[in-house]
Amino acid sequence: MQKIILPLALCAAALPSTLAAQPSDADIAAMRDAAMEGDTLAYAITEGLTTEIGPRLAGTEAEARARDWAITRLTELGFSNVRNEPFQMPTWVRGVETAEIVSPYPQEMHVTALGRSGSTGANGIRAEIVAFEDVEALRAAPMGSLEGKIVYVGHHMEAAQDGSGYGFAGPTRWIAPSLASERGAAAIVIRSVGTANHRSPHTGGTNWADSVTPIAAGALSNPDADNLERMIALGQPVSMHLTLTPRWIGDQESGNVIAEIPGADPDAGIVVGACHVDSWDLSPGAFDDASGCGIVTAAAHAILESGIQPRRTIRLFWAGAEEVGLLGSTAYFQRHGADNHALVSESDFGADRIWRVEFALPDGASADADRVTRLLAPLRIPRSTLPASGGPDVRILATNGAPAIDLQQDGTRYFDLHHTRNDTLDKIDPAQMRQNVAAWIVMLAVMANSEAALSPTEIAE
Amino acid sequence: MQKIILPLALCAAALPSTLAAQPSDADIAAMRDAAMEGDTLAYAITEGLTTEIGPRLAGTEAEARARDWAITRLTELGFSNVRNEPFQMPTWVRGVETAEIVSPYPQEMHVTALGRSGSTGANGIRAEIVAFEDVEALRAAPMGSLEGKIVYVGHHMEAAQDGSGYGFAGPTRWIAPSLASERGAAAIVIRSVGTANHRSPHTGGTNWADSVTPIAAGALSNPDADNLERMIALGQPVSMHLTLTPRWIGDQESGNVIAEIPGADPDAGIVVGACHVDSWDLSPGAFDDASGCGIVTAAAHAILESGIQPRRTIRLFWAGAEEVGLLGSTAYFQRHGADNHALVSESDFGADRIWRVEFALPDGASADADRVTRLLAPLRIPRSTLPASGGPDVRILATNGAPAIDLQQDGTRYFDLHHTRNDTLDKIDPAQMRQNVAAWIVMLAVMANSEAALSPTEIAE
Repeated sequence: MQKIILPLALCAAALPSTLAAQPSDADIAAMRDAAMEGDTLAYAITEGLTTEIGPRLAGTEAEARARDWAITRLTELGFSNVRNEPFQMPTWVRGVETAEIVSPYPQEMHVTALGRSGSTGANGIRAEIVAFEDVEALRAAPMGSLEGKIVYVGHHMEAAQDGSGYGFAGPTRWIAPSLASERGAAAIVIRSVGTANHRSPHTGGTNWADSVTPIAAGALSNPDADNLERMIALGQPVSMHLTLTPRWIGDQESGNVIAEIPGADPDAGIVVGACHVDSWDLSPGAFDDASGCGIVTAAAHAILESGIQPRRTIRLFWAGAEEVGLLGSTAYFQRHGADNHALVSESDFGADRIWRVEFALPDGASADADRVTRLLAPLRIPRSTLPASGGPDVRILATNGAPAIDLQQDGTRYFDLHHTRNDTLDKIDPAQMRQNVAAWIVMLAVMANSEAALSPTEIAE
Repeated sequence: MQKIILPLALCAAALPSTLAAQPSDADIAAMRDAAMEGDTLAYAITEGLTTEIGPRLAGTEAEARARDWAITRLTELGFSNVRNEPFQMPTWVRGVETAEIVSPYPQEMHVTALGRSGSTGANGIRAEIVAFEDVEALRAAPMGSLEGKIVYVGHHMEAAQDGSGYGFAGPTRWIAPSLASERGAAAIVIRSVGTANHRSPHTGGTNWADSVTPIAAGALSNPDADNLERMIALGQPVSMHLTLTPRWIGDQESGNVIAEIPGADPDAGIVVGACHVDSWDLSPGAFDDASGCGIVTAAAHAILESGIQPRRTIRLFWAGAEEVGLLGSTAYFQRHGADNHALVSESDFGADRIWRVEFALPDGASADADRVTRLLAPLRIPRSTLPASGGPDVRILATNGAPAIDLQQDGTRYFDLHHTRNDTLDKIDPAQMRQNVAAWIVMLAVMANSEAALSPTEIAE
């Protein structure tokens, strides 16, 4: 449709949205409070994905079943334009994974391959361990100095409400394998990048520099890493027999699931509520991220059920293939990067209570930020001074100028569960999950109806 | 040596123990308080067994290495008569263990074989699940009614300070497999008898009635059991592919490790401080029971180091093959049942703080019970009204009349860890462990020096 340029005062009067009823603060507060009392849809979606599907590794038939499940469920719930947007992706799958200390203190250790790990071959690799306290110590090792060795890298990750321990410890997973390969190592095991004291190692993707040959790269559980460090401290050489046989199975299909509440004003842009439908293969991904899909969908559904059509289209974006490198996000951007994204936001940090809200809005939307803040206050959610980034699957939109809001969840126990076998439904606290839904209702209801100019173009100016 | 019968007044005066210095309340309090400040031996023993040996399944070479380690360490520590007392035992070892829901919601589950489980064979068993809420519901199923099925049995186990949830839920592990086999089942999986919300199923022995053919019997982790129950509640038949291939490897050697502090009066009997050196194979058994061996040994060592020879012999009894059916206890009783056991006690319930003390002493020893109680009070350990049973490896001695004292540990988190892969050194709280050692010092110092008549004969009267 052609845009007609009008003076601003006239333009506002002419907007179709002003023809529709706007939810008042009282309307939004009522929906918010009803969610605190009664929402069960977020939990039901999380229960369905974890029970009826289970682990949903990107590119596998399990992820495809999850998409089908989502499309059926979103259609039943009354959303519009429910669809799968497929894309192809190189797919990595886990194989055998065992680790055993051969000498001097023979015992098994619990290991899991990092995403994109190379393989030891079926017979594994038996080699002496060379230990490094952290990534920087490994980086200081000369090229070629680790020939034939199994490298071990430790680190210290602290649980924190804002999850900041992950960014601090994360390079151990993200880059240490590549550094070890560069220096000639035969394989690498790292201390799990996670805070759990259970013997369930944390997986997650690692990244190989272009020039580097992928080697077998695994994570030991924290208690096993403790044990290995104690063995090494006793002073004798420690040898491990490590077998990791993941493999690439070629290009497979993944997809993004989209569902919408069409807005009253087609020109007012799209408010995106994102989550990701895939999970790592070790667990059914209750926290990461079935609950996120439950939360954003339940919030949008409350707005759908309110009968007040929003000014803007609300688009649910259940991303595929997040864990393995934001491939769904990339595919979405290729297809929808030019859409008029008025706001982007994602729930992908579990389902514990939201403890602060962050904004990245254009100047003209400060009244909206104030309104969201005011309506979130009864949920005990203060405004942060940090800017929003949008969340993993919509970050590319935010960095390209889309306005963003982050409803930040308490991450204190998130990294006990994240990417382990223990990310299961019992970890969801329904009361905290309801607070998430209530907060999302506030945010979507305000921002989908805001009269402010919200678009990537506006913020990019 | 011949006993000479003397009138009681003369007898007391003639006892050799009265020739030795007796520790005063102040002496014992000083040792107790020193342990609260400084003991590190209990932790060092736990660290050594878990780091240098690891899992120590009864009858395996790992258990033999643990005995060797114990003998070396106990000798170095200055104990007397340090020895291994070997015995033969039928030995069961774990094989492959996998469980997968085949339909209608394909996904893997985490399972582990119960001790003495039969095997499914290498190809496993694929069958429909028939679920029972608890053991009594299974018992009510008619004979032959479960032909070819995989039985599932749930239960509800609550964490409790006194560990009483275990006795309540335990029959699910102990007898449900036998009941299922009797009724024709092809295999059985139970909800883990444990309180953990991690996906690490709890093993432990099951018992087969004489007439029953052992079938494959596994435990699902609690989150997996939750998931299976949710699937079943959805109403469609649920099928599982279960593979458990444990096997018996014939008679192997186990052994009990003994170490002593010889008493000044050979006729005054023996005070036994017990623990067990074996563990289940899934974990290094920090709580169960390396810490128990650490605690009783550190307490005895404090008495050895005090330079005050006790009236009675203190005998450390590191039992072998406890987990697999108290085989070390049986072997000890066969060899030592006729020894003059003045007191028996065991530490086999982790290393969290002792919260109460229980006695089963002859009437003439009430002053000793009062003295122990008085000296434990500063450790915030009240006297229980329940009688002592002695602990698993010395219960056979207690039921045959040996006086007993139980220093009961707080079991609130014990069954989160018990018989899982997560029973690792990091779970030990050194401060709480020191309180255990301090309490054991009090108990051993009082009872090894008591003038009361303490013997199985006395209590059996």
